[in-house]
Amino acid sequence: MTTTAFEQHLTRSAKATEALLSALLGDTCRPGEIARPAPLLAAMRYGVLNGGKRLRPFLVQESAALLGGDPQAAARVGAALECIHCYSLIHDDLPAMDDDDMRRGQPTLHKAFDEAAAILAGDSLLTYAFDIIAAPETRLADAQKTELVLALARAAGMGGMTGGQALDLAAETSVPDEAGILKLQSMKTGALLRFACEAGAIIAGSSVEDRQRLRTFGQKIGLAFQLADDLLDVKADAETMGKATGKDAARGKGTLVALHGMAWAEARLTALAGEAAGLLDSFGTRAATLQQAAHFIANRRN
Amino acid sequence: MTTTAFEQHLTRSAKATEALLSALLGDTCRPGEIARPAPLLAAMRYGVLNGGKRLRPFLVQESAALLGGDPQAAARVGAALECIHCYSLIHDDLPAMDDDDMRRGQPTLHKAFDEAAAILAGDSLLTYAFDIIAAPETRLADAQKTELVLALARAAGMGGMTGGQALDLAAETSVPDEAGILKLQSMKTGALLRFACEAGAIIAGSSVEDRQRLRTFGQKIGLAFQLADDLLDVKADAETMGKATGKDAARGKGTLVALHGMAWAEARLTALAGEAAGLLDSFGTRAATLQQAAHFIANRRN
Repeated sequence: MTTTAFEQHLTRSAKATEALLSALLGDTCRPGEIARPAPLLAAMRYGVLNGGKRLRPFLVQESAALLGGDPQAAARVGAALECIHCYSLIHDDLPAMDDDDMRRGQPTLHKAFDEAAAILAGDSLLTYAFDIIAAPETRLADAQKTELVLALARAAGMGGMTGGQALDLAAETSVPDEAGILKLQSMKTGALLRFACEAGAIIAGSSVEDRQRLRTFGQKIGLAFQLADDLLDVKADAETMGKATGKDAARGKGTLVALHGMAWAEARLTALAGEAAGLLDSFGTRAATLQQAAHFIANRRN
Repeated sequence: MTTTAFEQHLTRSAKATEALLSALLGDTCRPGEIARPAPLLAAMRYGVLNGGKRLRPFLVQESAALLGGDPQAAARVGAALECIHCYSLIHDDLPAMDDDDMRRGQPTLHKAFDEAAAILAGDSLLTYAFDIIAAPETRLADAQKTELVLALARAAGMGGMTGGQALDLAAETSVPDEAGILKLQSMKTGALLRFACEAGAIIAGSSVEDRQRLRTFGQKIGLAFQLADDLLDVKADAETMGKATGKDAARGKGTLVALHGMAWAEARLTALAGEAAGLLDSFGTRAATLQQAAHFIANRRN
């Protein structure tokens, strides 16, 4: 699979994820719901249906496919994970947090609606993620659903993503050392990417060994994702990214790029992608898509 | 059981819930967590360990006890539900939402810490609720955990609590009619109280009929809770409540008290408590505590 073919595959997957998310965010109540208020639903849809790359759902689906997991269940778990990712962007963009006005070339949710809508839409998307996993339409055993709920909650919560965002805010006043940067990044962005890959193994009912291997794969690409992001922050201009850039430097935030320089970062990215891909060599050619994904993440331009 | 004995029972239960919540919000990482950042944990503890009545955990535990559910599992599910309740208070108090500076006589979380801490602590508590239910320490079958996760997500999400808060914010500019008020209240405060009672039946593995009966009981006391709240808003002074009162009237929000008057509201409260208690008559004297709870909720003074 060439890089172009891989990107076409990723685009097709993103379109399918977008369609599923749109259906999940429809206005028909499910059992136990009283009403889906139209203004709240509109804010949630604005925050989710924005043409993202849907990298995390893609990783869930490809990890599940590699290990023989059900594609429809993987699609729903991927959609749940994307709801968490989108809620985190909505809340991180708030004035009290990173205070960003633009995201993917569009006004952020609190600019397009208001702050209350952004807070509530984020809370609702976070809650809905667990609904989607537990719902009867997700055709997995209850034991798998329990494992997914637990792993997702730990990846997204105080010991993972929200804890990482707390460390990130603290880093604006006290620059962390290298170990501190790595911990922050493994929590803020790494934990969800790690979960995406591990979720595929849970959906497939894989062995402990395969689950651990996918977990380590997810950790490596999580590191690569953040390092590529830090490099892009230095290199890219605002037009390419569709959001303000150079903000890390302006805020004096510590990154590995700032510590070690761009040449080191590019070499480290190549090494991480190679290490991640190598973890899947024993699966043979079936692992080609995920291996391509590792290189894609390390080489991404936006 | 006299009212005084009931209140002593409620106080003992609240102390046990507080101790469990304090243990759950300790600084030791669980598997899958990378770190629990101290400032975030401190904000979460501030938002939760504040001497609340712990009415929702009490209802989970008493509903489970009535139907023969495991007390330890009920305590954990009750603690999870309290995390959701506390997160909703933290976010509702934010300047962009209800903009409250005081809660239970103490500065609200965003005043004691800052807005970013309040947003992140709320997000983390919401996420942690699902962790607590799914964790191996909650000794329930996976099928029960799946049902609890789904029912809690639907009670707390866009079709329940957060949807109700969205309707409540909209009601500041466009006063709803009686049906609109009832829908808003059944979502904003009713859904979690209904879940509390239904959760007991799920924990006990009860019949569909018993689960429905507890659900209806929860709906009735949810209505009573909100009506008592609206009455208190009119009657109580700021000192008794430990927060600003008379705000509903100042904001021009519609309540059933405003529509029908205080005498109607007091008669309706008595009727609702009686109807709720009557639903449990067939359980005999074992239901006495829950029946007392219905009257307590209807007659509460703060």
